[in-house]
Parts: sequence; structure tokens; C-alpha cells
Amino acid sequence: MRAFQLVQAQKPPELREVPVPDPGPGQVLVKVGGAGACHSDLHLMEAPAERLPKLPFTIGHENAGWVEKLGPGATGFASGDPVMVYGPWGCGICASCRVGMENYCENSGGLGGGGLAGPDGGMAPYMLVPAARFLIPLGTLDPRQAAPLSDAGLTSYHAVKRSVHLLGAGSTAVVIGVGGLGQMAIQMVRALSAATTVVAVDTDAGKLETAKRMGADEVLLSGEEAVTRIKDMTGQQGAQLVLDMVGIDPTLRMAAQVARVLGHLTIVGLGGGALPVNFSSPPHECSVASPYWGSLPELMEVITLAQQQKIKMLVEHFPLERANEAYQLLHDGKIQGRAVITPQP
Amino acid sequence: MRAFQLVQAQKPPELREVPVPDPGPGQVLVKVGGAGACHSDLHLMEAPAERLPKLPFTIGHENAGWVEKLGPGATGFASGDPVMVYGPWGCGICASCRVGMENYCENSGGLGGGGLAGPDGGMAPYMLVPAARFLIPLGTLDPRQAAPLSDAGLTSYHAVKRSVHLLGAGSTAVVIGVGGLGQMAIQMVRALSAATTVVAVDTDAGKLETAKRMGADEVLLSGEEAVTRIKDMTGQQGAQLVLDMVGIDPTLRMAAQVARVLGHLTIVGLGGGALPVNFSSPPHECSVASPYWGSLPELMEVITLAQQQKIKMLVEHFPLERANEAYQLLHDGKIQGRAVITPQP
Amino acid sequence: MRAFQLVQAQKPPELREVPVPDPGPGQVLVKVGGAGACHSDLHLMEAPAERLPKLPFTIGHENAGWVEKLGPGATGFASGDPVMVYGPWGCGICASCRVGMENYCENSGGLGGGGLAGPDGGMAPYMLVPAARFLIPLGTLDPRQAAPLSDAGLTSYHAVKRSVHLLGAGSTAVVIGVGGLGQMAIQMVRALSAATTVVAVDTDAGKLETAKRMGADEVLLSGEEAVTRIKDMTGQQGAQLVLDMVGIDPTLRMAAQVARVLGHLTIVGLGGGALPVNFSSPPHECSVASPYWGSLPELMEVITLAQQQKIKMLVEHFPLERANEAYQLLHDGKIQGRAVITPQP
Amino acid sequence: MRAFQLVQAQKPPELREVPVPDPGPGQVLVKVGGAGACHSDLHLMEAPAERLPKLPFTIGHENAGWVEKLGPGATGFASGDPVMVYGPWGCGICASCRVGMENYCENSGGLGGGGLAGPDGGMAPYMLVPAARFLIPLGTLDPRQAAPLSDAGLTSYHAVKRSVHLLGAGSTAVVIGVGGLGQMAIQMVRALSAATTVVAVDTDAGKLETAKRMGADEVLLSGEEAVTRIKDMTGQQGAQLVLDMVGIDPTLRMAAQVARVLGHLTIVGLGGGALPVNFSSPPHECSVASPYWGSLPELMEVITLAQQQKIKMLVEHFPLERANEAYQLLHDGKIQGRAVITPQP
Repeated sequence: MRAFQLVQAQKPPELREVPVPDPGPGQVLVKVGGAGACHSDLHLMEAPAERLPKLPFTIGHENAGWVEKLGPGATGFASGDPVMVYGPWGCGICASCRVGMENYCENSGGLGGGGLAGPDGGMAPYMLVPAARFLIPLGTLDPRQAAPLSDAGLTSYHAVKRSVHLLGAGSTAVVIGVGGLGQMAIQMVRALSAATTVVAVDTDAGKLETAKRMGADEVLLSGEEAVTRIKDMTGQQGAQLVLDMVGIDPTLRMAAQVARVLGHLTIVGLGGGALPVNFSSPPHECSVASPYWGSLPELMEVITLAQQQKIKMLVEHFPLERANEAYQLLHDGKIQGRAVITPQP
Repeated sequence: MRAFQLVQAQKPPELREVPVPDPGPGQVLVKVGGAGACHSDLHLMEAPAERLPKLPFTIGHENAGWVEKLGPGATGFASGDPVMVYGPWGCGICASCRVGMENYCENSGGLGGGGLAGPDGGMAPYMLVPAARFLIPLGTLDPRQAAPLSDAGLTSYHAVKRSVHLLGAGSTAVVIGVGGLGQMAIQMVRALSAATTVVAVDTDAGKLETAKRMGADEVLLSGEEAVTRIKDMTGQQGAQLVLDMVGIDPTLRMAAQVARVLGHLTIVGLGGGALPVNFSSPPHECSVASPYWGSLPELMEVITLAQQQKIKMLVEHFPLERANEAYQLLHDGKIQGRAVITPQP
Repeated sequence: MRAFQLVQAQKPPELREVPVPDPGPGQVLVKVGGAGACHSDLHLMEAPAERLPKLPFTIGHENAGWVEKLGPGATGFASGDPVMVYGPWGCGICASCRVGMENYCENSGGLGGGGLAGPDGGMAPYMLVPAARFLIPLGTLDPRQAAPLSDAGLTSYHAVKRSVHLLGAGSTAVVIGVGGLGQMAIQMVRALSAATTVVAVDTDAGKLETAKRMGADEVLLSGEEAVTRIKDMTGQQGAQLVLDMVGIDPTLRMAAQVARVLGHLTIVGLGGGALPVNFSSPPHECSVASPYWGSLPELMEVITLAQQQKIKMLVEHFPLERANEAYQLLHDGKIQGRAVITPQP
Repeated sequence: MRAFQLVQAQKPPELREVPVPDPGPGQVLVKVGGAGACHSDLHLMEAPAERLPKLPFTIGHENAGWVEKLGPGATGFASGDPVMVYGPWGCGICASCRVGMENYCENSGGLGGGGLAGPDGGMAPYMLVPAARFLIPLGTLDPRQAAPLSDAGLTSYHAVKRSVHLLGAGSTAVVIGVGGLGQMAIQMVRALSAATTVVAVDTDAGKLETAKRMGADEVLLSGEEAVTRIKDMTGQQGAQLVLDMVGIDPTLRMAAQVARVLGHLTIVGLGGGALPVNFSSPPHECSVASPYWGSLPELMEVITLAQQQKIKMLVEHFPLERANEAYQLLHDGKIQGRAVITPQP
């Protein structure tokens, strides 16, 4: 089969001929329906050799498809089952993995997932998954549509769910940056919480329009006026949850200004900024944290929400041959929602 | 090898010659160090055929030992590793199993564990464990001593841990019935919480003496005076946590009298009684529940507590040949702590 | 002024001429807009003398109105402010009161509220409230409409809110008995949680129609088929939350059958039944509890939900002169939603 | 009476003759037993006029004494009762105040407490407390000893208690800076949690000796070796809770290095540093927050712990006449534990 592989550091990946893997004991071969193209892949492609795993490997860590073949002893699924592939592959037996948080595996750091750190990922017709526990039934969802839920969906979901106890009646959530993940986050707040007001902030008026359709009550262009408006809307108290999906210094600064005493300020975006925290800012006992991906049980819940049509993601499909083009469009900010590579002919 | 098997309903188990199993893909063969003799085994031995799994099978669901042989694809352990065997074997992929609560598996109901419901248990020199995830490293603990932690320890631990947020400074916990599990529970409250006062109640003065050594602050013989005393000690408010390790009508009635508004009344004992709950009793919003066993991550914590010598269990060892005698002593109330069968010659 | 007072045990209350109270230090005189007629008032009217407080006293514990006069040192409100009166008046300094749960006051048991246990209640043009902390601003809400929120609303809200962490994506809530409180509860589940499915059960097809309008996804006539249907809908697992708003033996029995492992079975109805709890039923670790009313901060949240029109209650108004008629209709099951006495001429 | 008052910005406070206040409705006059001298008073004394409340006012926000006289309508206490004075005085009716968190009052920002922001504090024989709800019975504790619990005690307690769910069996807590508050924090971790290991870090070997007596398992001099040691002790995972009681850049940097994924990094010290937070540091989903003081119910718990002798604080007493000397010693780092002014002759 042909696989979209990173062959040399800081060179575009290439389509290379590789053998279809055969699943060993406990392993599962998945026929890939869709493999999402994620911003972090662009980071991989630009990274120097010393920060990369052994090359070459197939990229694509946001995958869904159908069970093709179960290795000896692999159970719980049958050939043909549509499945989501959970991305961060942990050891399975540390305290984090045992509660399904393999993203925080104490042994691998959750970085062992296919397509990210060495094992081959999903941008090929078939993908080897090391254990059946990394698969989740998709039910009626189409793998080509559902693939981005495994990262874009799960990351947003986790960032919202950990704060949902703060989002009671009368509460406010602010989402800064409403690209693909931000749009997801707005839908997640709506689906999971009693929050009264969801505010979307962005520099792009078009994205704010989309945010409104996704359920934002108030959309604001970035700037000092946005801060003033949010303080006014919240009786000068600030918002219970502020999600920074951008993570550059100006968005982080804004986040600290509009967060609330005892609130959550959650940094999801990898923009490279940093938020200074001390007694003066952000407000007292506002918890600042930067989560990474999400857990297996949470991914089950994301799939449930999608099955109920409470969340949806805009998806643009590209055949394997056009994968490099998809990444170019992503790099240029020309992808609406998510680009998904569909490796089946 | 010789295995202690239930062969016919309502007849004592027998030692029978069976082959040593060979671990298939993902499975692990464990050389058994200790297999605890539990009251619920007595229930199994007395049950009518229609309530039993297919006979014969080896009993013993409270096991620890050493890894003997890993099946193909089983990872995370090496031959010779001392391990605890987690008892309730679930499907591994339902929402409960994915957070390590295989005791509440949505598919098996958590009843699929070896020695309880069909697959062979630990009262034999070797035991087949269906997946490496059911094993937990014992570190420096001796499997012959540690075996009872997997049920007596874990069950008590879970019953305490789910309520530990109630046991702040100035709080009171009452343990009714201080046999093996009750003694464990006293130690768990002491190890996990800030509870000011732990009260032990029993009909047996000798057990109350032991309870005092285990950390109880106040020991009371069952009866109306015990109720009055507990109410007085708590400013007439009652205890935040009441654990009924007996579960007969009189102990449940007492439990309802000494529990507190917003407290927990937890029924661990299988005595066959039932507690009527309505607006009048127990106190308002006191949560009444009957948990079953515990989770995999909790078992890791129990092992940690034992390694730190914060909990200990009295253990009496019996060779496989004397297993029926051990159960007879257990039935007659003559076992101090826990009887453990040691199947190695 | 004329007040609707209970004068003699087991006789209907009477309209009697009493002086308008003058607020002492810290007290507040409230001009009553609406006073809800509650089923528990019927219990008061039927109770023998020994279970009643000192007679006579004005009934009505579900009150809203306008601040008329602040006693010396009472602060935080101005004359004319529309306010809700929180019902259960505690001591204010025990651990429960200090977190706003005066319904669980350790000194008064939360039973000291006006109209219930001695201090005069709201079925009179003016009512004396012992401290400003029992008042909550109503904002734009009309006290005549809002009064029932202080008991019917708050009781339902608390019963749902304590379980909202169980009601994630894909979850099911069952409300048994969908009269006034049950209808509220359905709206609360919808407003507060991500629950996928809300099931209403009743013996009355008309009420089930109303339940559907209030947001129930599935409405079922009581009976064995309802149990089967709920088990089928939940993959045989049962519902995460079962609210029994009736509390008679048959509804409690049904509740135990449709509740889930680790779920909540909450008894709100005062029907006089009792649910037996042990290892066999309800499912393992399902928490059974019977809460009483709710807290001050929760009442603030209920008012917020009403201001946002996420909850509404059908209200029928009666002047003070027709109070006995209102109770007769309530007794005969002829009130839709809630009867509210409006004591202003 | 003579009161220790701040009269002019950036000048030492003076003893001035002022009238004994008379308690109005709801107010309580307290005869002061002890008033702690706190580092934040030094900040007050050094602040420019524009950052100070209207001068003059009596300083001292860490107070305990005896009820002298109740104003009209003030209830719950009797003359002579030994009481703790809760410091941050809120409005009493916002959502924060209603759960006892007047430190986070939405109207005053919790800064309205006596001795800090205008109303006279406790460095005088008598002090006016605006409402009985700010008092907590001391029981058998001596107000002269107990006074520091109301700030040094409560602040440490809150910082530990909000994280106690992380401190299970096998967990590690690190306290950086073990002066008065740090010593308290060590005792709090011991009293409230199941944490296996408490590590104290300081630049002062003498303080580390004290820390050991207070319950620290391991004491480390600040520096890179301390980081390595903590990582080694925790299997390279880091500590579940890191309390920085200093708050300068080097301690914050160390805190980020030794904290754990999903842990808490809590900044208590007002050293003026700031911790930069982003995706790279501290570890993923480690929550960074800077709490302020604590709540009324928490202060009740602190008093309970002190009554049980689970916590104790070194106290040095000074008569009112020597208050300025006490602050000089505090400024020079020569106070062991806490300096307490005792204004009674």
C-alpha cells in the first residue's frame, strides 16, 4: 500500500510504498476511512531531526475507519466494525492509563500515539493499532466525517468538561479564538452545561459569524472593548471559564483580564505565549492550566454527542495523493473546519 | 496439578488433578502464593445448582502470586514478578471498565472473575489470568500475606474512599461489625481521612479490643446505649459515615439512627437485612448505598498503603490439603482475620 | 391586617385580624405578593395538636413580595425591592447555615421557617422576616408568579442539581410523578445537564402530555411495561438519576428497578412508602436519599433560571378570602401547577 | 482606650486615645485577647497614601478575644464567650458570601475587613465587629494563642484543603518556604490527607529542622539538587501538590519543575515573582492558582484542628506598648512563628 510518510526532517512527507501490516497478538488492523490533518503535523514537518522519532513513519494521528483484522487474542470487535482510533497510546497499566487517561501515561507521557511519535499513523489505507482498547465503536457515524473528533473534538471536549461544574445557571464562558477547535468548544459548552452566556472573541469577523451559528450568544472582535464588554456583562466579576484557543501573549493577557475569582483559565492554543501568574493576576484562585488531549472515556462521550448531532464539525476531504496540498492549505489558513485525508481509493 | 474445585452443588469442594493451563495471546499464568478464603465462597458452596456457573471450577477469588509465564503479546510484566490479581474481570471496553471499575462492567456485571463465576480461581498452584491488566505489581509485599488485600482490603477501601470527602476535621465515622473487613475499614478511615473520631460497634468484646488496637477511638457494645452515646458524642447530629459491615436488620436500624443529615450510610455486610428509606429515616439526604468490591486503581492504592504499613491484616495460612478445614473454621467463626490457602508445596 | 391562621388543630385555618408587625433590629417587613399553597400545608392542617407549634400562627411558607420596611441594622435591600423569601430559617452560625444550607441547620433542623413551625408565614398582607439574609432579589420577576419557586422550585432544583454530575452525554433521567414538582424537575434536568433522555412516568395521561411540553423525551404510563421500556432504552443498564416525586411503595419499587449501578435514586415525594435497600436492590452503589428543600445559593440560581425563562410554573391566583377554597381544590387534585394566594387587596 | 493606629502613610503607627465603640444593631463589641502581627501589615505601613484607606485606623486583622457586648438584635453569642474574629468582611448576600466565602465577596472583594481597609482592627483593647456571623466560638482555646489561626492558620488551611483530593495514598506534597505559614501547611497536609511524603524546602537549615518536627518527611535545601531529589522520590512524576509560600521567581521556577501532571501548584507567598504558564511548563494540566485567605466554614475547621492539638503555632506575645517593636522584629526576620499583640493590660 502507499503511505504518506515523513522521510526526512524539514522536508515535505512523501507517498511511499510499504507493506500492509499483519496484526500480532492483541493488535488490530484498521482500514482507514479518514485521517485528519492537524496543525501539530505542521510542527512535526518543520521540526529538526533531533526532535523527531526514527524516520520514516506514516503521519496522521486523528483517525477513524473499520476493523479489518483482529490479531490473536484481540477481542471486543468484529471485522467491519466502524471505529474511532484513540490517539495517545499509553502503557495501559500505570495509574493514569488505568482510568483511561492514556494521554497522561506515566511511562510514555502519552506521546506514543501512532502518527505522532514513531508508530505509523493513519495516512495510509491500513493502520496497525497495538491494542483493542484504543478502539471505540462509531455506531452510525461515518469514519470519514468522524475522524477529527478524535483530536479536535476530544481536546475541546476535555477542556470544557473539566470546568463544567463552574458553568451553572447564570454563568459565562468565553472562547478566545474560534477556528476549528474554538467552534467545537462553543458547541461543547452548550451541550454540557447550564452556562447562560457563551462569548466568542476573535480577530476575524467571518469566524465570529460562524461562532454565532455554533451557539455563541455574543461575538466580540478582540481588543480592549471586548474586555470592557465582558466585565460589564458579568457585573464586573468576569467569566467562570475562559478558554484561550490561541495561546499568544495578547490573548493570554486578555484571558487574565476577563477571568473570574475561582474561575478556570485554560490554555489550549499552542501559540507560544506564556501567562504570568501571581497574587495580582489573574483574579484570586483562578486556576490556570494547559491540558493535553483527552481520555478514552471522554472520547466515548464525544462520539455520543456527535451521534446525537449536538456537535458537528465542518470537514473537507482530500485523497491521499493530495495530502501535501491539504497541509499547504492548512498552513495558509484556507481550511474551513478540518481537512481529512481519505486513504481508500 | 491439584486444584480445589467445586464439583457438585451443595457438596464440599474437592482436590482434583487438572492440567496446568498454558497462557494464550494476552493471557498470563500466575503461580499462586496465597488465595484467601472468603465468606462468599461459603455462599457458593451452599448455593443450589441453578445459581452456580458450569461445574467443576476451581474456587478462590482473592489471589496473589508470581508471574509464571506471559502469553504472546502480554506485556508489562516479567516472569517472577510478584503480583496481585484483581478479582472482577470485566470486558475492558465498556465505560465502566475504561475507568478501571471492572467490578461494574456493563457487560459482565463484574461477576466474571476467576474463582467466582466460572473461570478457575486461585486455589491451585497455577492460575490463568485472562489479561495482564488484571495484575498489579506487589513490590516488596509477600503474596502469601497480601492476597486478602484483593478482596477484604479492596472492598473496605472502596467503601471508605467514596466517603472520604465527608470525613473532615471534627467528623465521626462509625464502623458496625469489626471482624476482618471492619478492622480493615477502621485502618482505612485512619489512613485516608482527617476524621476526629472512629467508633467501633460490635456484640463481641474481644473484637472491640482488636478494633481499639487498629485505631478506633471509642468502642461500644451494640445496643440502645451505643446509639445514645454516638448521638451525644456528635452533638446529636450523628456520624458523617456509618459503615454497616454486618447488614442484618438490627445493625441497619442502628445505622439509620446514628447517621447524619447529608452523611453516608454504606451497607457492606451481606447479612440479608434491608434498610427502609424514606423522608423520615435515615436523616435527610443521607445517602444509602451498597457498593460491590472496588476498582483497579483503588487496588493499586491499597497495595501502596500496605507497603507503607498503614494497613495490615491478620492472616492464618493453610496448605491446599487443608482448604476444607479452613472453610470449616471460617464457617464456625474461628478465623482471626483471614484464612489464606498457600498452594505451593 | 387580616391573616390566614391555623387556630385549632384539625380545623380549617381562619382569617383573623392581627397587627402589622414592626421590624426589630436586623429584621425586615415584607409586603407579600404571593404565598404558595403547598401540600405540606394540608399535612399541617390535619396534624394532631401535639405535632403542631404553638397556635395560632399564619400559614404560608412559599413567599415572595416587596421589602416594606427595614429594621435597624438590616442592610442590603431598599424599600420597594421585589424579593423572594427563603423558607427554612436556621441559626445562621452552625456549619450548615454558614454555607447557606439553613434547611439543614444543626440547631433548628431547618424547621423554623415562617408559616411552617411557629413564626407567622406569608398568607397575610405583611410578613416579618427575621434577617435580611433570607431575602433574595427578584429582579424582573413578579412576586405573584415567582412565589412557588421558593419551595416547589427550590426543592426540585436541589434534587436535580445534586446529581447533575451523573447526567453527562448519553445519560438518562427518569421522573416518576409529573405533577407540579415533577414538571419542574423535568425542566431542571433540561436546563442544567447534558442528559440525552428525560423519561416521565405517571398514571395520568394528561400530566404526561404536559410533561412532554416541559421537555420530556419519552412519556410512559406506570406499570411493568414502563420498566421494560426504560431498561431497553438504556441498554439494560438503567437510568443515572431516578427521581421519585410520589414516594409510595409502588413508585419506589419501580424506581429501584430502573435505577443504575452508581446512579442516584432520590425520594422527593412524601407518599409514605419506604424503599428497602440492601446488596440485592437497588443496583450496586446506587445512592438512595431523601433530600429536604434546598439552600440559599441554590435559590439564587433558581431565580436566575426563571429570569432566563428556562423554567416556568403554571400558577393559579386566589385572593386571601378564597384561601380555604384553594386548599380544597389542592386537596381534590384540581390545581394545575400551583395555587398562589395574593394577599394584597 | 489606646489604639495602635496608622496615622500617616509611610510613618510607623502610633498609640492614640480613641473612644470605646458602642455596638449598634447586629454588631458585637469584642474585648481583644490577641491580635497577630502579619507581614501584610508591613506592606500597609510602607504603602503610599493613595493606596491606603482613610486614615487614621487601628491595624490588626488577625484577632481573637471575648464577646464584650452584643448590639440590639445580635444573637448566637453571650457576653464573655471566647471568640475568633473572621477577618475578611463581605456583604453577606452575594453568592460568595452566602456560602461563607466572604474573602471572595463580589461586592467588597473581601477587602473590607477590620484592620486592613478602613474599619478599625484589633490592636486596641476593644474592637467593633459589624455582625455576629464574623465570630466563631473558640471553646477551650485561649484567644491570645489562637489569634494567628484566623489568618496564618486559615490561609494555610485553605491552600491545603482545596487540594486534599489529590493527596491520596502514595502521594507527595512539597512546601517551599517553611516559615510560620509553611510550618502550618506541613501540619495541615499531615492532618487532612493520606499523603505519603511531605517535603519541606528552604534556604535556612534551622527552619528545616523545625519543619521536620512539624511532620515533614524530607527536608531539602533549595537548589537544583532539591529538584533532582524530588523527581527521584516521585518516580520522575513530580508532586501532586506544590505550595510556594515564598512567591519569588526562583521558588516559582522550582515549583514548576517539581509539580506533576494534573497536580496543583499553589502560590501563597507574596514575594512579587510571577510564574509563566503555557503548554511547556508546568506539566500538563497542572493547575496554577493564587488563593486569598479562606472561608468562614474553613475557619471553624481550623479551630477544631487546634482544639484537637493537630496543629499548633509558635506565638510570641507583646503588650500594646511594644507593638512597633514587634513589627520591627518581624521586619528583621527575628520572629519565631507569630508575634501577637495582647492589648489587655
